[in-house]
Amino acid sequence: MQLQNNIRTSSGWDIIENSFDEAQLVTTGSNFMIGNGYLGYRGTFEEWGAKEYVACVVTDTWDQAEGSRWSELCNVPNGLFTELRINKEKLSIFEGETTEYLRSLDLKHGINQRKVTWTSPKGSQVQIQVEKFASHDNHHLLVMRYAFKALSAGMFQITTGIDGEVWSINGEHFKSFDTTEKDHLIAVQQHTYEMNTEICVVEGIYISGRQPEGSTLNKEGKRFFREFQFDLQKDEEIVLEKVVSIIHSNEVEDPLGLARDEVKQALQLGYDELKLAHKKHWEAFWEKSDIEIQGNLEAQVLTRFNIYQAYIATPTHDNLPIGARGLSCQVYQGAAFWDQETFNLPMYVYTHPDIAQKLVAYRHDTLQGAKRKAKNLGYYGAFYAWTSGKTGDELFPDFFFTDVLTGRPIRNHFNCWQIHVSPDVVYGIWLYYEATLDWDFMVNQGAEIIFEVAQFLVSRVHFKKDKNRYEIIRLLGPDEYHENVDNNAYTNYLSRYSLQKACEVYQKLNKENPKVLAALSEKIELPETAYDSWKEIADLLYIPETHPETHLIEQFDGYFKLEDIEPDALRMRLIDPGEYWGWPNGIAVNTQVLKQADVVQLMAMLEGFSQEELTANYEYYEPRTEHGSSLSPSVHALVACKANHEEEAYRYFMESATIDLYNASKKVLSGGSFLGGIHTAAAGGVWLIIVKGFAGFAVVDDGVRFNPKLPKEWEGLSFRLDIKQCELLVNLDKDALTLRRTDGGEHGLKVYFKENAELLKPKASLVFKL
Amino acid sequence: MQLQNNIRTSSGWDIIENSFDEAQLVTTGSNFMIGNGYLGYRGTFEEWGAKEYVACVVTDTWDQAEGSRWSELCNVPNGLFTELRINKEKLSIFEGETTEYLRSLDLKHGINQRKVTWTSPKGSQVQIQVEKFASHDNHHLLVMRYAFKALSAGMFQITTGIDGEVWSINGEHFKSFDTTEKDHLIAVQQHTYEMNTEICVVEGIYISGRQPEGSTLNKEGKRFFREFQFDLQKDEEIVLEKVVSIIHSNEVEDPLGLARDEVKQALQLGYDELKLAHKKHWEAFWEKSDIEIQGNLEAQVLTRFNIYQAYIATPTHDNLPIGARGLSCQVYQGAAFWDQETFNLPMYVYTHPDIAQKLVAYRHDTLQGAKRKAKNLGYYGAFYAWTSGKTGDELFPDFFFTDVLTGRPIRNHFNCWQIHVSPDVVYGIWLYYEATLDWDFMVNQGAEIIFEVAQFLVSRVHFKKDKNRYEIIRLLGPDEYHENVDNNAYTNYLSRYSLQKACEVYQKLNKENPKVLAALSEKIELPETAYDSWKEIADLLYIPETHPETHLIEQFDGYFKLEDIEPDALRMRLIDPGEYWGWPNGIAVNTQVLKQADVVQLMAMLEGFSQEELTANYEYYEPRTEHGSSLSPSVHALVACKANHEEEAYRYFMESATIDLYNASKKVLSGGSFLGGIHTAAAGGVWLIIVKGFAGFAVVDDGVRFNPKLPKEWEGLSFRLDIKQCELLVNLDKDALTLRRTDGGEHGLKVYFKENAELLKPKASLVFKL
Ligand SMILES: [Ca+2]
Ligand SMILES: [Ca+2]
Repeated sequence: MQLQNNIRTSSGWDIIENSFDEAQLVTTGSNFMIGNGYLGYRGTFEEWGAKEYVACVVTDTWDQAEGSRWSELCNVPNGLFTELRINKEKLSIFEGETTEYLRSLDLKHGINQRKVTWTSPKGSQVQIQVEKFASHDNHHLLVMRYAFKALSAGMFQITTGIDGEVWSINGEHFKSFDTTEKDHLIAVQQHTYEMNTEICVVEGIYISGRQPEGSTLNKEGKRFFREFQFDLQKDEEIVLEKVVSIIHSNEVEDPLGLARDEVKQALQLGYDELKLAHKKHWEAFWEKSDIEIQGNLEAQVLTRFNIYQAYIATPTHDNLPIGARGLSCQVYQGAAFWDQETFNLPMYVYTHPDIAQKLVAYRHDTLQGAKRKAKNLGYYGAFYAWTSGKTGDELFPDFFFTDVLTGRPIRNHFNCWQIHVSPDVVYGIWLYYEATLDWDFMVNQGAEIIFEVAQFLVSRVHFKKDKNRYEIIRLLGPDEYHENVDNNAYTNYLSRYSLQKACEVYQKLNKENPKVLAALSEKIELPETAYDSWKEIADLLYIPETHPETHLIEQFDGYFKLEDIEPDALRMRLIDPGEYWGWPNGIAVNTQVLKQADVVQLMAMLEGFSQEELTANYEYYEPRTEHGSSLSPSVHALVACKANHEEEAYRYFMESATIDLYNASKKVLSGGSFLGGIHTAAAGGVWLIIVKGFAGFAVVDDGVRFNPKLPKEWEGLSFRLDIKQCELLVNLDKDALTLRRTDGGEHGLKVYFKENAELLKPKASLVFKL
Repeated sequence: MQLQNNIRTSSGWDIIENSFDEAQLVTTGSNFMIGNGYLGYRGTFEEWGAKEYVACVVTDTWDQAEGSRWSELCNVPNGLFTELRINKEKLSIFEGETTEYLRSLDLKHGINQRKVTWTSPKGSQVQIQVEKFASHDNHHLLVMRYAFKALSAGMFQITTGIDGEVWSINGEHFKSFDTTEKDHLIAVQQHTYEMNTEICVVEGIYISGRQPEGSTLNKEGKRFFREFQFDLQKDEEIVLEKVVSIIHSNEVEDPLGLARDEVKQALQLGYDELKLAHKKHWEAFWEKSDIEIQGNLEAQVLTRFNIYQAYIATPTHDNLPIGARGLSCQVYQGAAFWDQETFNLPMYVYTHPDIAQKLVAYRHDTLQGAKRKAKNLGYYGAFYAWTSGKTGDELFPDFFFTDVLTGRPIRNHFNCWQIHVSPDVVYGIWLYYEATLDWDFMVNQGAEIIFEVAQFLVSRVHFKKDKNRYEIIRLLGPDEYHENVDNNAYTNYLSRYSLQKACEVYQKLNKENPKVLAALSEKIELPETAYDSWKEIADLLYIPETHPETHLIEQFDGYFKLEDIEPDALRMRLIDPGEYWGWPNGIAVNTQVLKQADVVQLMAMLEGFSQEELTANYEYYEPRTEHGSSLSPSVHALVACKANHEEEAYRYFMESATIDLYNASKKVLSGGSFLGGIHTAAAGGVWLIIVKGFAGFAVVDDGVRFNPKLPKEWEGLSFRLDIKQCELLVNLDKDALTLRRTDGGEHGLKVYFKENAELLKPKASLVFKL
């Protein structure tokens, strides 16, 4: 089926491109990328280099280039680099004639394929077929099979090796470039400027069948490669297998040695074995995470594409953040934002709790960074970073934007006023705990985080004695257009939630693990009054009331008094299209226009809002939202479902699901700044919209709830959930919602549906007529 | 003696100009002005009109012109308008030849004089001599004596009447222009656009001796005038006396009738009688308010000039504000700012308590406006306006500045974050009460203000429970370059001071006037807990500590962490010289550069700082201050005295004292915006510097203190003080400070001098050797 933007799908499990559009070079590089959470390898062509945005971004390699203010992940040398020449003419999509063209991505198995028939300017002909994957069996490995077939006889020359000419958006990270060749393996060893991290790329080759006539080893600039020559008759084919291992010293002591060993072993196993092991992992992943959509192939492939992208962006080998652009590029520093908990974590919590646990454990690993941040700002407890890398220290600078009208740097306050990040982390922990009931995690790590966040809130709130209430002053909510606001509804709700959870965990620990509580209290120097202050603040924290008639919740104190104007009318006030709309004097600041709607975001996350509240607030805030954030459509899709605006929900779902795949917008700013990459949170949001929106799934205290709204564009929908130690197969069609438990657990799961509640027993099913 | 800027003085009681400089037209109009607190009449020439900035600004005529955002005082028709023609050639400084020229202002008697000998382009010659004053005997009256002498024979024609062609900086205020002639008096009657205020100008003439040959009455446009013709022989002289009465309907019901009566009566009395009565009032004023400086005529005349300007800006006929530019023009809306209490009130408190009482009573008259402002912003109690007119409602708009770089309006926060205005009002009341011991005022008006301000503070502060302290969040201190700061030292100190005074007054009332307290509490609905909360907040309000080693007080939380750069270096960052340095993204915002120094301001106002604190803070903040405010040099002069920086004190004194008189800077912006006018607060500041700085006068709980630092440029200094019901004559010379009590009161006055304290008895003297 043909999709938009030059893309088609054959099975709902793949995306395929049948012609090459140079204008889409940046976007397709992201969309066809492969990866495994350790590295991301853009879906570019083998003969390309930095100027075509080839990139292999590796997590846990944060480094600040000389003279830069930015700590970012390294783009490492490209071990898959391979050029092909026929009678000295170099294969290139930009020259000669390409008569057969295919680039595809097998979403089910994480395999990128390419097939091209090419006629050189002088008339030589060749067909190439390439397949590559970023192994999920061994995260260090990139594996490629490069086959070429002479369609006309000639001298074929393969140049293959490691291309160290990498691009980097904020400066050169490597102060050294050492090359070695040993045991037929070639290696590049580099050290980064700031952190002195050693990063090694080792490459090995296996050529099956006919061997080359000649072979040389060369180093040209930062390209370290071998050349092989074949005199081929028409229809003769050569198959080259390449294995690349990428390892750095933040992971192991001897990255070079290990990488060599891994490449050797992998070459012994051979391409087919490596691929088989890799595919097994992908199949196991989809077994739990696939969402099957009946009756709509486009929605089907979009959904899988987004789940695929969310997954390959997620480190599963260690406790590390999911970058806001995953590993698709260096933009956003490969760092975690609050989106990690709110957009990406849920899918794992309900389908792969093991991965979810690593993500929440990452917040424990970075707790000291969050404590340092709080301390630097005059608070205590844990104030999680707006931009969080390895250590959890704040990576976001005081001055981020530059005023395009004046050229002056702007003092942004994402790093100091956006305090909701801390409650968001607690929200994520509770999401994990509530779904998994993993009390061990709570005891060992979760409680400490929750207590430190509670302490941060104690240090951050103010008590208004005359009103007998706590307030939170000077905030920046998720809606980034309104800085310096008080009692932001989202922040206050989530802060109360955090404090309530702190009290709950404290009491449970006190009852069940008093020694752990005592030890923890001593470790983090919890004052004796801690519990009482959490309780008091939770009880007395001002929560913007729902207006009794309009059912509206004000986004922050005074919001409703701001100028009420539509985003499109407001846009006319721009002097320069590149202007920032927010702080300090952007066009949205003194208006009700939002980048994203905090109250809508809140309703996407917390349960307990009435139907009137859901509908009224959605209807009020939606037309005032500019959706300047890629997170906004997801949230609107989800809450539109709750608000009974199914058509709009579907429109926002499609907007969210196609952000990357259909995006034809310019991804390189004039001047050459790279802006492309995968919107990881939006990708995670697609799963959320379907499961929590269309299927209406929610976790409640003593069970789960479903309130399904199957889009009229679909016939049906099925997916699996891991929830409260039950495994659930959810089937939704136009007539019924069917739940089947596939686990053999002991207890029943209480399921709420409309006004009813039923118990779903192990190995049993429930059918709810719609 | 010749002064700067084309000005000389003959006696220290006058300023004289002996040549005309057109470039100084705007400035000299202010400097030579006359006035009486009811009206201000610029020191322009009789034949001039709007384009030479003739103006007569009348207090209590606030009005908003159609289409304007600004409420301002009206500039009313010029009743002194008088043209002279000789053989049809019109007298003009810009044509013919002026051989004798004098413009002078008699500061002692508030009389403006002019003497000119003029030869017309065709050779006719005339000498004119003009004298005029704004009566202090009857505030409605402008009185003029216009004499001209034929130096060559010819036909002399006098055109005199009311010129209604007035200028106004924010639009036309008059929707009507009615003229009448009755009983030989001519009158203009106008109504304002917004408020429908009726403003009448009535003019009468008396020509002594020889009467005119012809006389006509004319109306041309908005000029309503009479013409008189005289055929004069050489050396014949004509003397015209003019009386103008200006009255508006905010004062009386029938302004026209009253103005007519007043003019008739005044004409009967005649010029000499009117002048005598006027001079008596001025002599009585100076009797109490003069500061005599020995050995420095320049300082002498500058001091008197400033006291003169401060006085004529001060309404003494009613409870009305002193405008920031007095009645010298419409700039700053004729409204009071916090400067009224901090810069202008003290002189009256210590020399004319009757005037001081009107100024503090003005704050009682405007209490309801302050309460409305508090309520509008979500508080209660009294939040005094940043820009305060008749009603006390906030006149300052949300958007004041426009960003010169982008043309975008800026949301300024002078009207909502500059909360120190309320404590400043209390400071003023306490200044008055402490000096006068006028408990009646406190009982009837002061207590209500102080309690309402205390209640406002209750509604404004936040309690930090974990630190057991109150804080004040989101402030703009007097230093306007740093908005949105917390715990501004000036604001917090003054707020505590206000609350302490509230407690003190409450207790005294409770003891001495319990019924009044009960009635007042009921009237203003004071909660029962009010006293306790004031006391608690006063006790627990966070006051930025003095650093134990550096003795520095931080201007606000985090100030010392801002970029430390000198003002001149910072200035280099300006893109446009007209840029505002402050909010939201001006060049000073993220630096330690101040418009004026809040901690220095604080030390100018409150006692009790140690010598180390005074010196350290002055030395730290002074070089970081840009002095972007005309208030800044006064305060620095005063605190430089306390900090033992006498030379700098004198330099700042001279800067402050010459702001208007020597100011040669451009007073009209390109495009014609008028920016001139008298800096009333700086004028009041001159008295403060001398009395509180050079004489080192301070009021302490049980008496007064002197810590004199006579400038080395002076021989001596004497002035009078009204303090704690004693009249004091203070003489300071290089050897001794002599205090003489001229009153016959009953009690002794305790006087602190260095480490000693002595009792000064009625009619007795004390001499302190220096
Ligand atoms: Ca809509
Ligand atoms: Ca200095």
